[in-house]
Amino acid sequence: MNVDLYTTPQEISDGSLANRTAVVIDALRASTTLVTALASGCREVIPADTVERAMSTRRRIGPQGVLLCGERGGLKIQGFDLGNSPREYLPDIVAGKTLIFTSTNGSRAMVFVRGCHLGLIGAFINAEAVVRRILSANTDVAVVCSGRENALSIEDMACGGLIVSRLLKSKPDAALNDAARTAQVLYERHAHDLLGLLQTSDHGRRLVEIGFGDDLPFCARIDATDVVPVIRDSKVVKE
Amino acid sequence: MNVDLYTTPQEISDGSLANRTAVVIDALRASTTLVTALASGCREVIPADTVERAMSTRRRIGPQGVLLCGERGGLKIQGFDLGNSPREYLPDIVAGKTLIFTSTNGSRAMVFVRGCHLGLIGAFINAEAVVRRILSANTDVAVVCSGRENALSIEDMACGGLIVSRLLKSKPDAALNDAARTAQVLYERHAHDLLGLLQTSDHGRRLVEIGFGDDLPFCARIDATDVVPVIRDSKVVKE
Repeated sequence: MNVDLYTTPQEISDGSLANRTAVVIDALRASTTLVTALASGCREVIPADTVERAMSTRRRIGPQGVLLCGERGGLKIQGFDLGNSPREYLPDIVAGKTLIFTSTNGSRAMVFVRGCHLGLIGAFINAEAVVRRILSANTDVAVVCSGRENALSIEDMACGGLIVSRLLKSKPDAALNDAARTAQVLYERHAHDLLGLLQTSDHGRRLVEIGFGDDLPFCARIDATDVVPVIRDSKVVKE
Repeated sequence: MNVDLYTTPQEISDGSLANRTAVVIDALRASTTLVTALASGCREVIPADTVERAMSTRRRIGPQGVLLCGERGGLKIQGFDLGNSPREYLPDIVAGKTLIFTSTNGSRAMVFVRGCHLGLIGAFINAEAVVRRILSANTDVAVVCSGRENALSIEDMACGGLIVSRLLKSKPDAALNDAARTAQVLYERHAHDLLGLLQTSDHGRRLVEIGFGDDLPFCARIDATDVVPVIRDSKVVKE
């Protein structure tokens, strides 16, 4: 099994995901938010790479049972129903609904991996469940970190490193690329204080500044749920 | 002092280097090769991003005292005088010469950072001297890893991490971006066996395969020289 990690989706060559299981990670906060939304009973999520595409999708499918969700600059987009704090995605609000979701980095990565053999959404909160799903698919693996503004983000690398580290327990002979090895080292160095790592990350500090500090411990709860969102026909659903 | 590391030059926004000291790293092997060439007394190096540009530069400046140098796929380019093994760059061969140099990742990064306040070439073999030069410039710092095929390379990250780690000794309050922190963790985890890290890196294994295994211990000799190449007027010279 080859396990390749990408620090941003831009590193991936066109078509190279065709036979691989891809795991999209945006630990702060989009992947945590979508896992939470599906755990709260939402019907499906349609990721959109731009605000304009999110709006046109809602026009196309109509407003009935649909919520417009997402952020720019970390804040809820004007006219949208929900932002990108996973703590907003409660069963009372999202159960049975279709969510159209756009975020600065995460939803773009989800759109980017269309064409992979199997697409999963991974976060700290569903790491072990993701690992089990990867192992049952038994293909080569692409761990796709969303990154931040086209650069490495430490929280995505650490989350990727957690998944790599867990995969190696079942597949000790897996071949890791340089970035997967780097992520593993990073995770293992900070496993004892993951929340501290998130709090001092570039993005974590920004979230604290704009009032979302409580999202950090929420996102840092390793293995809090068994929900594994799957990307299928351009939608994200609970398998 | 802000110390930002970039896993590839593609992460850098246009114009953002104007007030910063940039250190270009391609530890296997271009930056080690240029440090060695200047330590061996070559007059100057003209980095070229493409083979065509290297050839046209030689036509423009003439063949007298000029060597065409570089690699594609790790191997010497047909018709060129030297490849990209630092062990080729001996005083007998390069002293007093102008080198036109092109490599897959490193020379492109060198061309990319034109426009920075001060441009340096860093490698394991001149790490401490680079750190001293950064400290005397006393600006914000951009550590620019060349990477490999537009993705993170573990040897460049480790070399960047060494430089970050040494900078922190003099500037303990320096603000690191996520990638600089990741690089520091990686270096410190592998500091006891740097050669082992190079030997198991994606690029290191490739070099062993094509017969350049002896370059790895050569490139891993931390602080072997005090030479700091400086990028000035599109050339790389010894300061």
